[in-house]
Amino acid sequence: MTTTAAPGLHVHDRYGDADLPPLTLSNETLAVQLAHRSVRSFLPDSVSDEHLTAMVAAAQSAPTSSNLQAWSVVAVRDAAHKSRLAALAAEQRFVEEAPLLLVWLADLGRARRLAARHERPLAGADYLESTFLAFLDATLAAQNAVVAAESLGLGTVCVGAIRNRPEDVARELDLPPHVFAVFGLAVGWPDPDERAGVKPRLPQSAVLHRERYDAPRADAGIDAYDARLRAYNRRVGLAGGWTERVLRRLAGPGSLAGRDRIRDALVGLGLPSR
Amino acid sequence: MTTTAAPGLHVHDRYGDADLPPLTLSNETLAVQLAHRSVRSFLPDSVSDEHLTAMVAAAQSAPTSSNLQAWSVVAVRDAAHKSRLAALAAEQRFVEEAPLLLVWLADLGRARRLAARHERPLAGADYLESTFLAFLDATLAAQNAVVAAESLGLGTVCVGAIRNRPEDVARELDLPPHVFAVFGLAVGWPDPDERAGVKPRLPQSAVLHRERYDAPRADAGIDAYDARLRAYNRRVGLAGGWTERVLRRLAGPGSLAGRDRIRDALVGLGLPSR
Repeated sequence: MTTTAAPGLHVHDRYGDADLPPLTLSNETLAVQLAHRSVRSFLPDSVSDEHLTAMVAAAQSAPTSSNLQAWSVVAVRDAAHKSRLAALAAEQRFVEEAPLLLVWLADLGRARRLAARHERPLAGADYLESTFLAFLDATLAAQNAVVAAESLGLGTVCVGAIRNRPEDVARELDLPPHVFAVFGLAVGWPDPDERAGVKPRLPQSAVLHRERYDAPRADAGIDAYDARLRAYNRRVGLAGGWTERVLRRLAGPGSLAGRDRIRDALVGLGLPSR
Repeated sequence: MTTTAAPGLHVHDRYGDADLPPLTLSNETLAVQLAHRSVRSFLPDSVSDEHLTAMVAAAQSAPTSSNLQAWSVVAVRDAAHKSRLAALAAEQRFVEEAPLLLVWLADLGRARRLAARHERPLAGADYLESTFLAFLDATLAAQNAVVAAESLGLGTVCVGAIRNRPEDVARELDLPPHVFAVFGLAVGWPDPDERAGVKPRLPQSAVLHRERYDAPRADAGIDAYDARLRAYNRRVGLAGGWTERVLRRLAGPGSLAGRDRIRDALVGLGLPSR
């Protein structure tokens, strides 16, 4: 929790911009956060229960709406089990390869079971607001787990593809009604040979507004960012810039990898989301 | 990023349980995370631009789905502006009192504007999946900002009530179409006289499952947790346990403080969420 003015944290990699001055504030936590990168290649070593306990304690330390704690997490280590989940999540090799897969759950089941036990109504849980609340709780928790993991030298990557086939994932994890898998997190020890680094983000001016949203100012930096991301991609053996990626990813229902069905899946799994 | 085995981090406060052994892993980042509490009483001192820059750099370092970065944040410091937003967010005094209010936005507007500029379709953004993606991106970013803020000695509290009146909040922040305020974050220097501490959470056994979801095992610790939370509440001048709070908070549409309308509000603000 110490803060030092010098030497300042470099943000060149974070923004892909060698001209940016360093942050004037610096500490170990900020350094961990700024160094974040997605890790998709892992050593075979397992992640210990001590590491898992620390990650979950950090996750539980995140804020949660009205202290409802409307989330849970399933830790998957069994190779066959993990491999079946990888098959459901776009067959991404790193999900199978990571020694630990955490599946973060929006969990309105706990509250529903409490209501049933106490014979009380819980119609508020039927609304889209409550689904959001549970998704947000799971996400706040998961991000704290990501930071904790990286502070311990572990690497992680989010697996949004866990939402591609929600009913199959629910079956694979024995999820009770009113529980929905929000995303996966592959966790392990980073392979030092992986060819990937800190991915540059949009300039701060694109995401940070003062008092009121200012679209022309925010969008002014996108072309320069496209060039910076293209340069980064070239360096790690990928191609293309940002704009093209965004436009393809959201082009139509067919580009959502099955997730255009998510509303029906929610209803079917006991989250009416009205 | 150093990890030391001794002395280990105490989790007594986090779980309200004096019998728990300390974590075997420890570092500065974990210590910051485990010490999280909501701060609702602030000193009058302002939060500098340097602090804001560091928080936003941390926020941008969080994972984001397919690097879409479908979020933005509005920093509100103007007293009159902040006071109007506080009025829209259940008139919570601490929103007005905090020197800085960050409003985290699910932002599909940037991608929509890009698509319009390049005359490309973007029908994928119409789906509930894309709304979730933007909510998740905003939340991952915000949680990183919370950790960064706390590592610098700042205090924060989430303001879910920013969702009570979405259209009015959108007007107040000049939000363009396809942008939705997910939650607020009041930020400032903690008043050392505030009577509140680290709020105990459910035992790890309630949220952490191994391989498959196990409801009976997860729910077994709830009664004991109710007693621990009641003891904590008594200490800080509050009343009641957890179960009663959950059942009241989700009892019906009337307990959602206007948020039972969120689906209509999304559609009206350009996030069809189909």
